[in-house]
Amino acid sequence: MPRPLVVQKFGGSSVADADRIRRVARRIAREREVGSSLVVVVSAMGDTTDELLALATAITDEPDPRELDMLLATGEHQSATLVSMALHALGVKAISLTGPQAGITTDGRYGRARIANVDPVRIREEIERGNVVIVAGFQGQSADAVGRAEMTTLGRGGSDTTAVALAAALAAERCQIFTDVRGIYTADPRIVRDARQLPVIGYEEMLELAHQGAQVMQVRAVELGWVNAVVIEVLSSFEDAPGTLIKEDLLVEQRNKVRGLAHDRNVAKVTVVAVPDRPGVARTLFAPLAEAGINVDMIVQNVGHGGATDLSFTVPRVELAKAKKVLEPIVRELGARELTTDASVAKVSIVGAGLHNAPGYAARMFGTLADAGVNIEMISTSEVRITCMIAEEALPKALDALHGAFELARPDPVDAKAAGQVAG
Amino acid sequence: MPRPLVVQKFGGSSVADADRIRRVARRIAREREVGSSLVVVVSAMGDTTDELLALATAITDEPDPRELDMLLATGEHQSATLVSMALHALGVKAISLTGPQAGITTDGRYGRARIANVDPVRIREEIERGNVVIVAGFQGQSADAVGRAEMTTLGRGGSDTTAVALAAALAAERCQIFTDVRGIYTADPRIVRDARQLPVIGYEEMLELAHQGAQVMQVRAVELGWVNAVVIEVLSSFEDAPGTLIKEDLLVEQRNKVRGLAHDRNVAKVTVVAVPDRPGVARTLFAPLAEAGINVDMIVQNVGHGGATDLSFTVPRVELAKAKKVLEPIVRELGARELTTDASVAKVSIVGAGLHNAPGYAARMFGTLADAGVNIEMISTSEVRITCMIAEEALPKALDALHGAFELARPDPVDAKAAGQVAG
Repeated sequence: MPRPLVVQKFGGSSVADADRIRRVARRIAREREVGSSLVVVVSAMGDTTDELLALATAITDEPDPRELDMLLATGEHQSATLVSMALHALGVKAISLTGPQAGITTDGRYGRARIANVDPVRIREEIERGNVVIVAGFQGQSADAVGRAEMTTLGRGGSDTTAVALAAALAAERCQIFTDVRGIYTADPRIVRDARQLPVIGYEEMLELAHQGAQVMQVRAVELGWVNAVVIEVLSSFEDAPGTLIKEDLLVEQRNKVRGLAHDRNVAKVTVVAVPDRPGVARTLFAPLAEAGINVDMIVQNVGHGGATDLSFTVPRVELAKAKKVLEPIVRELGARELTTDASVAKVSIVGAGLHNAPGYAARMFGTLADAGVNIEMISTSEVRITCMIAEEALPKALDALHGAFELARPDPVDAKAAGQVAG
Repeated sequence: MPRPLVVQKFGGSSVADADRIRRVARRIAREREVGSSLVVVVSAMGDTTDELLALATAITDEPDPRELDMLLATGEHQSATLVSMALHALGVKAISLTGPQAGITTDGRYGRARIANVDPVRIREEIERGNVVIVAGFQGQSADAVGRAEMTTLGRGGSDTTAVALAAALAAERCQIFTDVRGIYTADPRIVRDARQLPVIGYEEMLELAHQGAQVMQVRAVELGWVNAVVIEVLSSFEDAPGTLIKEDLLVEQRNKVRGLAHDRNVAKVTVVAVPDRPGVARTLFAPLAEAGINVDMIVQNVGHGGATDLSFTVPRVELAKAKKVLEPIVRELGARELTTDASVAKVSIVGAGLHNAPGYAARMFGTLADAGVNIEMISTSEVRITCMIAEEALPKALDALHGAFELARPDPVDAKAAGQVAG
């Protein structure tokens, strides 16, 4: 009978130096003893990626995307070989593979490539030979315009995506994402003292949490897991404790509807004041932002009076300067009165799969924030989420109040049952 | 008419940081303006290779050779992409290629691979497109036992070999090796004050100098240049000054027979005292050393008396501990009295293509050393070289005396003529 296959992913902080790499190797060796076949995806050591980026920008303000991808990919090559060596030192057979060697091909967009295909023929061969296979995350091979092999990277957090894609292609029993936190929480435990770790969460809910600022997992990795029904476990690489399972949650109807809170400080509010209220204005403003690669999120247009209206929206805070540069000439052309911005805002969200069928939750959220003296500046909703923009300084107060109001500290009686589904 | 093709190689100290990389790029850009098509080979930045080695040995005493090669190769990938970016910043079209992308295949011996073939189809395409092609040195692609692509490295100084091999495959007009010295000298200018830079030197002489400790160029690169008649120029990457040409020296017969002095401190003397004088002893001693990868150089066997003899030889000083470990049990088995070692010795050589036909030179060398009060412990000779082992502390005195005795500070009248051959 073939051994069960497990994919494990270790992030940069888990492999930041020789000591941590040896610790990761011991962890892998223990799992190997249990009897699993293992594919291990690693990120670059510690701050390597940022250091390489700094080196590139010390040389030129605009590094060529192709060269930058080849440069950054070396970080994961290094950590993969070192983890493999550390396993050898423990007497565990192992081999490291680059993304291309692992059969990962991408669509060829430098710096933000998407995985186009995984052909894990070599991984399977190495597993057959009894090797633990260490794969350099964050990268793949693409063909350039004339068909020659080039290195591409998947963008920030891309190693999560590598791990989930390999788990899908190999039909792995589970994909374990080792991080510096224990799992997914009802709220950020650094802010909300009685935040509780969730034993299980559905893909859709996790996706919303990730979208709304929970930085534990890359959004694309969660999407890919959802589409391929990969059971993902988020757990700590520093302690032996059960993590959080991300999986199809069959018991979702029986649960507390609000599963967790998310928040995001990387947000800024832009308001175009007194813009003429005529068709096409929104496109005139937003098309150039999209072209510049700036994501616009919440959009609110006030009721117009006197032929003019105010239009507010949010952009990532790190993109605010770029957004202003794009918008200023357009605002003048449109004849709007002015462009104002506010970078001291934050978003807070309640997330839960049942929210869209339960009208009482929005009212309870708004009421809770009002009772806590927190002013709501903008609101947006999705099927599984209600988000309010508030002043950044009010964020801890808002999270605490919402965590209490939705009783998130209380263990969900359904959770034990859900965890049992997977273990069984 | 196609532009003349020049291959340039920049070593680790030339690309040690962002500033130096920008300086190298300006140098390449100047050469590009002159009108040459350029292929540039780079080593890893500064001490990167040593740092990566230290990281590997912090994890395990015996890093797997395959994993180590993949790890070390990243150093050259990084510097190649950074030099390419620096050229872009100057408005020069450039592209970096890994060894495998550049079409360099090796015989697959990890850590000490030899280049098996160069298929520069992609380099030619990139040159056609007007790119300066930056190639990661020190590496190539090999096929493993079942034909899958693996990364291999060429050993210390391997980037020189990469450069010369590419120059041969591309029929380049010249291969320029940029280093932290100005060229090849009659002796080490850090020790011999009136050492003189040679405008030209023959392959065979250069090979002996490199073998005997001149660390300016890798021995294999010189051999490869000789076999393929590649004109090599060694020059400084920090100043604009003519270097030394290594080429077929047609005027060798007309020259001062001694072209230069070499010395080597990486040497230790091993003596097996009172070893039984019977057939097969030498093989019993030297075969295990060869198996352990230890190069034995000078060998002297004293005339035996009483059925026993003393056998002395040299090994690289860095291999002395390993050599002792290999030899001690053998010495006991052979019934020799003892094994003594001396690590405070050095070799000094005179090198020149005409030496073997000129018996007076050996006598002059020995006499000069005697007059200077330097004791000769061992002697070896080749077609183009006479080497004496002396006490390490006597090395500066010996070099000074020999430099004077062979009138090496005086420019050779034939040199100007020889330099003209190439320029023309």
